Amino acid sequence: MEYMVLKITGKAFTSSDLLLRYIEVIRALSKTHRVVVVTGGGEIARRYIEVARGININSNYWLDEIGIWVSRLNALLLIGALSPFTSPTPPQTLEDIIRAAILYPVTVTGGLIPGQSTALVLLQVAEALGASRVYYFSAIGKVYSKDPTKYPDAQPLSEITVTELKRVIEQKILPGDYALVDLHALELAIRSNIEIQILDYKKPELLFEALRGQNPGTRILPR
Amino acid sequence: MEYMVLKITGKAFTSSDLLLRYIEVIRALSKTHRVVVVTGGGEIARRYIEVARGININSNYWLDEIGIWVSRLNALLLIGALSPFTSPTPPQTLEDIIRAAILYPVTVTGGLIPGQSTALVLLQVAEALGASRVYYFSAIGKVYSKDPTKYPDAQPLSEITVTELKRVIEQKILPGDYALVDLHALELAIRSNIEIQILDYKKPELLFEALRGQNPGTRILPR
Amino acid sequence: MEYMVLKITGKAFTSSDLLLRYIEVIRALSKTHRVVVVTGGGEIARRYIEVARGININSNYWLDEIGIWVSRLNALLLIGALSPFTSPTPPQTLEDIIRAAILYPVTVTGGLIPGQSTALVLLQVAEALGASRVYYFSAIGKVYSKDPTKYPDAQPLSEITVTELKRVIEQKILPGDYALVDLHALELAIRSNIEIQILDYKKPELLFEALRGQNPGTRILPR
Amino acid sequence: MEYMVLKITGKAFTSSDLLLRYIEVIRALSKTHRVVVVTGGGEIARRYIEVARGININSNYWLDEIGIWVSRLNALLLIGALSPFTSPTPPQTLEDIIRAAILYPVTVTGGLIPGQSTALVLLQVAEALGASRVYYFSAIGKVYSKDPTKYPDAQPLSEITVTELKRVIEQKILPGDYALVDLHALELAIRSNIEIQILDYKKPELLFEALRGQNPGTRILPR
Amino acid sequence: MEYMVLKITGKAFTSSDLLLRYIEVIRALSKTHRVVVVTGGGEIARRYIEVARGININSNYWLDEIGIWVSRLNALLLIGALSPFTSPTPPQTLEDIIRAAILYPVTVTGGLIPGQSTALVLLQVAEALGASRVYYFSAIGKVYSKDPTKYPDAQPLSEITVTELKRVIEQKILPGDYALVDLHALELAIRSNIEIQILDYKKPELLFEALRGQNPGTRILPR
Amino acid sequence: MEYMVLKITGKAFTSSDLLLRYIEVIRALSKTHRVVVVTGGGEIARRYIEVARGININSNYWLDEIGIWVSRLNALLLIGALSPFTSPTPPQTLEDIIRAAILYPVTVTGGLIPGQSTALVLLQVAEALGASRVYYFSAIGKVYSKDPTKYPDAQPLSEITVTELKRVIEQKILPGDYALVDLHALELAIRSNIEIQILDYKKPELLFEALRGQNPGTRILPR
Repeated sequence: MEYMVLKITGKAFTSSDLLLRYIEVIRALSKTHRVVVVTGGGEIARRYIEVARGININSNYWLDEIGIWVSRLNALLLIGALSPFTSPTPPQTLEDIIRAAILYPVTVTGGLIPGQSTALVLLQVAEALGASRVYYFSAIGKVYSKDPTKYPDAQPLSEITVTELKRVIEQKILPGDYALVDLHALELAIRSNIEIQILDYKKPELLFEALRGQNPGTRILPR
Repeated sequence: MEYMVLKITGKAFTSSDLLLRYIEVIRALSKTHRVVVVTGGGEIARRYIEVARGININSNYWLDEIGIWVSRLNALLLIGALSPFTSPTPPQTLEDIIRAAILYPVTVTGGLIPGQSTALVLLQVAEALGASRVYYFSAIGKVYSKDPTKYPDAQPLSEITVTELKRVIEQKILPGDYALVDLHALELAIRSNIEIQILDYKKPELLFEALRGQNPGTRILPR
Repeated sequence: MEYMVLKITGKAFTSSDLLLRYIEVIRALSKTHRVVVVTGGGEIARRYIEVARGININSNYWLDEIGIWVSRLNALLLIGALSPFTSPTPPQTLEDIIRAAILYPVTVTGGLIPGQSTALVLLQVAEALGASRVYYFSAIGKVYSKDPTKYPDAQPLSEITVTELKRVIEQKILPGDYALVDLHALELAIRSNIEIQILDYKKPELLFEALRGQNPGTRILPR
Repeated sequence: MEYMVLKITGKAFTSSDLLLRYIEVIRALSKTHRVVVVTGGGEIARRYIEVARGININSNYWLDEIGIWVSRLNALLLIGALSPFTSPTPPQTLEDIIRAAILYPVTVTGGLIPGQSTALVLLQVAEALGASRVYYFSAIGKVYSKDPTKYPDAQPLSEITVTELKRVIEQKILPGDYALVDLHALELAIRSNIEIQILDYKKPELLFEALRGQNPGTRILPR
Repeated sequence: MEYMVLKITGKAFTSSDLLLRYIEVIRALSKTHRVVVVTGGGEIARRYIEVARGININSNYWLDEIGIWVSRLNALLLIGALSPFTSPTPPQTLEDIIRAAILYPVTVTGGLIPGQSTALVLLQVAEALGASRVYYFSAIGKVYSKDPTKYPDAQPLSEITVTELKRVIEQKILPGDYALVDLHALELAIRSNIEIQILDYKKPELLFEALRGQNPGTRILPR
Repeated sequence: MEYMVLKITGKAFTSSDLLLRYIEVIRALSKTHRVVVVTGGGEIARRYIEVARGININSNYWLDEIGIWVSRLNALLLIGALSPFTSPTPPQTLEDIIRAAILYPVTVTGGLIPGQSTALVLLQVAEALGASRVYYFSAIGKVYSKDPTKYPDAQPLSEITVTELKRVIEQKILPGDYALVDLHALELAIRSNIEIQILDYKKPELLFEALRGQNPGTRILPR
């Protein structure tokens, strides 16, 4: 069976309704694929990190570590819902993710290491499992040519190369939210030739369209 | 060095100001004791469990497990603040807690097993380490003879035996909040002769009074 | 495949003949179910604990821990006989049991944590795996209305509710041996709606009858 | 601090009185040395292995594994008595023994791997920790020139070389019990130049004599 | 499925061409067997051990440990090539090997413990998994009656008993290289009745012949 | 005690003489600091990776993983030489490094995760332990203003900011070897304000000079 590697932004974990739809999609997919899901941290992560700063934790290591544990808590929500088709705890190293991906129909994991985004984890998992495409349910569903909140003529792109996206990120042409994939993740995409399919996190069912060959978001091409 | 085993209710983990005072107290204590802190789950645990129910997780195992992970997240806040005087992750079994308690000046842990309260963990740790008293910072600072929210003549107790407290809990003389220590925890207190010192979670510094032999809360006597 | 969760009292582990019959039953079951077996400690546990007391180990933690390791030794007997259809070591946490139960046809485990009976482990495993019934091969094969060793008119019961059984245990209507399931285990049975089928440990083959819908012992109903 | 590596035959674990004396000796030693104790399996191991054969476990791997777990159970008796000056579980690999030996005042371990005696473990630990002498409390307190149960003129030896002992073992000059150290263990003694001090297991206090430079048993010299 | 347990000498890991052929053979075998491969250390091990001696590491424990890690590095080469049909890291204890052998189509492992050859690991794995024959790709493809480099009339043997081979090794009739299986490994072969099929490491495809019942090397018979 | 975090390039691990000097330096430092050493992979890593490519391992994950294991083998050389003042195996996650750094006088580790340099590990460890400076023994001992192999007037710099170094790396002003610290590592240096002291790997004793406040190499300033 083929591997299906996807990431769900932390934003999705505050709405039960939305989560239920993700669970349906993952269940359906697990009939035909070995599924690995990477979960983000989202709002709760940000709030815990704020408490941490309030008690004088200034170390980036610990602030990130706290965010990572919140992303694992989000992973646990999916694990509980998908049990017993998945390992009962989120794997905490890349090697454990590979082991789980071989042994269980579905694997759900959060962040791994301080200083690294869950977008990077998405690409790391894909590289380790030899997947040539990943699916990224993000707060923005498409990449735009210009800031759509400022320019009415901003066009959503169906494709963008990593090189172009890097330029856009570095020149800050798009607002912060659009820097959805960090440079390290893009580097891995390039070096291992992995396409990133961006999808709107509010529509989990877009995954079926994507699997049928359609492009209901933006494809980041590894060039 | 002697062991000092205490529990902090989850309620304490939403206020940075209060947490800072706990951190001060623990730092001071770690000069003279090997400290083990058990952290509760609190409000965030309840909210996560609600989301879990919303996605049809009805298994008590998984609902409890999610609560346990939130208590570990709270433990991580203290760990980050006390680093490097403590193990960088909360231990997840009783044996790991013992190991950590021998090796590090401070050990911070959350819940352990579904179906068991963090109050039980407090007593389990004390029993394993041979401590004859534990300190429990709880939402109520004292046990009352009657429900203080209903009866103006309700008296705070300086001492209560486990036998009396069990009767109070079973007959529901006090409201739910006062059932602060569950029956399993009380059973361990009895079988291993461990006194439980209840303290008001809003006043971490009461621990110093308690160590000087005063009783600024209620003592649950193991009889 | 459905999960089949059962406990075998420690008493069964001193007779090779009886054990051989259990092994036959488990092998047969593993064709149609994922089987999890919890093993008790029994006579050897009691003897080791006596030696422990003789060297002044008075801590309940350590006395229980020694009993738990004997139950793991009993688990190992079954593991050796069933190899390679089972994990080569008894899992030592609830999460490890779940992991093993997903991965291996048969999982054999002993006790888990000091202060908790193997009967409680039986219920914990059932709750974690979502099983609605457990099978308990115990020293007594049926629950009686009165002490059968004293009253010739004592009747074996085919069913008893948890509420009634709790009353019987608390009022000590039956001798110690009949307190076969402790209060914590009964609590889990209630909260997760799990029926406990009591069976005579001298007759492993009763399991086949029970699976055919018969009731060759006593059913403890989760009400 | 120097390492002190010793083995206690499984025979010692059936008498509380004797064990108490060992515990006293180990406690005293731990003031001046880092102590590592290897425990044998003894009578209970033999009985469990018999039950195992009775259920048709013929695999030497599993028979040995069961013996190893009994030796760990014996280790646990000492661990419980020496807590909290020792790791709360017997280490199960050579690397874990080293780690424990660095971190805890006392380390207690049983057997490690099927096909290998606990006498070999004794030598492996000494080699890993760089100890030049080990103490072996065995069923026989001295090595004899001839079988003392047959020849009244048999002389206890104060020293014997490995080469001579090998010859004695291979030619079966002494009865089985005297083959107390197997060939693999002797090989390690030779290759890493480790002296084996044999002592009578009924007299734990002989260790103090040995430490004062006396020879209250037989020394097996690594030549 | 039956277990197939084989060892590949460290010599094979310097030639990509040869390794590619091994990988082909293992892939083919994994269709019909659960395969366990033990890898030797070879030339790189020797070189690393030389550097170790150069920095005054004289402990046999550490010199062996370094050799073991090189054998694991060799295992990793096969693991990378066979991924994802194998555990992503070489198992490091006998129990981990058993676990992996049950769960993955192919398991690749190096050495385990200082003082023990990878030939012994080969026999340990076979004993643990109940295999009655092992395949050993060694630097010599056949055992000879006399030293073939000295005596032109030396005959390759199709079979030799363990007893004869032991005599040959002890009397040093054959040069060092022919002592391909050490005494401990031979002991396990005897006690668990395991035949060792020696094969020329330059011809991985001989395994197919051996599986068809032919004997393209020497069989060491467990008598 | 303060933490001292340093990296030794893989190049240093082929010469016993040089390694001996590093061991002397680390031993001396461990009297006054908790030392953490990160080891590179070097020449052997490159050769193993070449063999890996030869057997058609094209996955960057596996090529990097093999390089990481070689760096661990290099770590093992130091561990063997420094035993028993260090954990007997190189830690394999950032959390394990922290744990080891608290418990042992010296910790030696190799690479951690595919896609990440050992220079990044150096910075990750420093960030996790709160160190404000790291020492990097690299193939080049100083950073130059221009390529010193081409321009006779190239000047060694005593200081360079991260911003300038990034520009130099991106514009490829210096040859590949000078890109000694990758962008991710520099990012961590910036975000956690860590200075990187570059030192010539052929002169381990420079560390003493650096500790005395001198600057015998180049300082990369976190601006």
